[in-house]
Amino acid sequence: MSLKALSSKDAASLDKDLMETGGFSLDQLMELAGLSVSQAVYRIHPPSAGKNILVICGPGNNGGDGLVAARHLAHFGYNPTIYYPKEGKNELYQRLKTQLRNLSIPILNDTHDLPEAIKTSHLLVDAIFGFSFGGPLRDPFPEIISQMEAATIPVLSVDAPSSWDIESGPPRDGPGAKFMPEALISLTAPKPCVKFYRGRHFVGGRFLTRGIAEKYGLDVPDYQEVDQVLEVGVDAEGRL
Amino acid sequence: MSLKALSSKDAASLDKDLMETGGFSLDQLMELAGLSVSQAVYRIHPPSAGKNILVICGPGNNGGDGLVAARHLAHFGYNPTIYYPKEGKNELYQRLKTQLRNLSIPILNDTHDLPEAIKTSHLLVDAIFGFSFGGPLRDPFPEIISQMEAATIPVLSVDAPSSWDIESGPPRDGPGAKFMPEALISLTAPKPCVKFYRGRHFVGGRFLTRGIAEKYGLDVPDYQEVDQVLEVGVDAEGRL
Repeated sequence: MSLKALSSKDAASLDKDLMETGGFSLDQLMELAGLSVSQAVYRIHPPSAGKNILVICGPGNNGGDGLVAARHLAHFGYNPTIYYPKEGKNELYQRLKTQLRNLSIPILNDTHDLPEAIKTSHLLVDAIFGFSFGGPLRDPFPEIISQMEAATIPVLSVDAPSSWDIESGPPRDGPGAKFMPEALISLTAPKPCVKFYRGRHFVGGRFLTRGIAEKYGLDVPDYQEVDQVLEVGVDAEGRL
Repeated sequence: MSLKALSSKDAASLDKDLMETGGFSLDQLMELAGLSVSQAVYRIHPPSAGKNILVICGPGNNGGDGLVAARHLAHFGYNPTIYYPKEGKNELYQRLKTQLRNLSIPILNDTHDLPEAIKTSHLLVDAIFGFSFGGPLRDPFPEIISQMEAATIPVLSVDAPSSWDIESGPPRDGPGAKFMPEALISLTAPKPCVKFYRGRHFVGGRFLTRGIAEKYGLDVPDYQEVDQVLEVGVDAEGRL
């Protein structure tokens, strides 16, 4: 199937539309996005393959999606751990943290804890930066990206491989230049940098209406049954 | 499996706990509850069995769960119609309505439209009253309950068969006295009136933590894989 890509600017505008004219709250959208992420984890790495999932969360909404995903992963029978080095200010993130604490999910924030957390995990969820990432990486993220890049466990990136430019893909050098996650889940629609991506690719966020899809020239993904996630391929032109 | 029941008073207290100490917003809880309802519909009546689903929504949170369910049903490929005779005041319900309008889902509110809406539907979702129902039925609900009771299409009730007392079950006479929906989805935990219920029984709302379950003497349902709904049985004592 072919899914059109959505620029960073249009992704921001689409989110605004969903909330202003679409009637959605950030709570709702993040809940459904995070649920999609957790279902993608289940597809690529069921609990029988190893239950320790490290979710690295950034300070914005991409990190929020990761916090929601971790909660669902715990309900699915995984043992998630959060690494949240730089917390966002939004009160929603604080509530999502409370929900995780009530499930006894560890929330780490010290850079020194990261190597051991990666070492004891079976899969890493990269929920650091999403479609609004404009670079450059600021501390402590260069070091975190480098560790994620060097990790030997599979990585699922949320919306975009963190450190990649949303339009032009991987950085030429430095942290992230060789970062190619095993799996990627695009939320709502793929971002342009997906043309540099090779690996398993999913789309999630089953709330796109035909009206909004038409406005942005997107396709409504062909989700199956009650799934909140769809695996899509990449064609020869890098189109999905 | 055996699932313990939750009284009306405890259900209200548990919801309060989820929001006050649990960090959940009503948006989040309703999103997950409504998603569970839509998945129960899919289990008992996949789109191949008929796509026209009539969702009758009451003025409170039970109705809100129905509004969310209808949105997911549209994404699953159904043609839902809402019958919403008495709208709730909460701004969340207005936003949920906006979301439905953007999916071109009809929202009816005239009692005269109900017979035709039932006649052209394949399944009815009863999202009129939930655990906070204390009776008696006020207009226009006696007539609506009577029509639902007389309907020949299958009915899925959300949390409790509407008109039933949450503790003591069906009314002795009048509208609802002979109401026995084909299916019931209990949210978070069954309510005491479930002991009067015979039919397919599901539980949904996959957000219950062990801590809250212990506080209220409940069991965490044994949900499978990424399912947001679990079908449960009823034993000889009416326990689940």
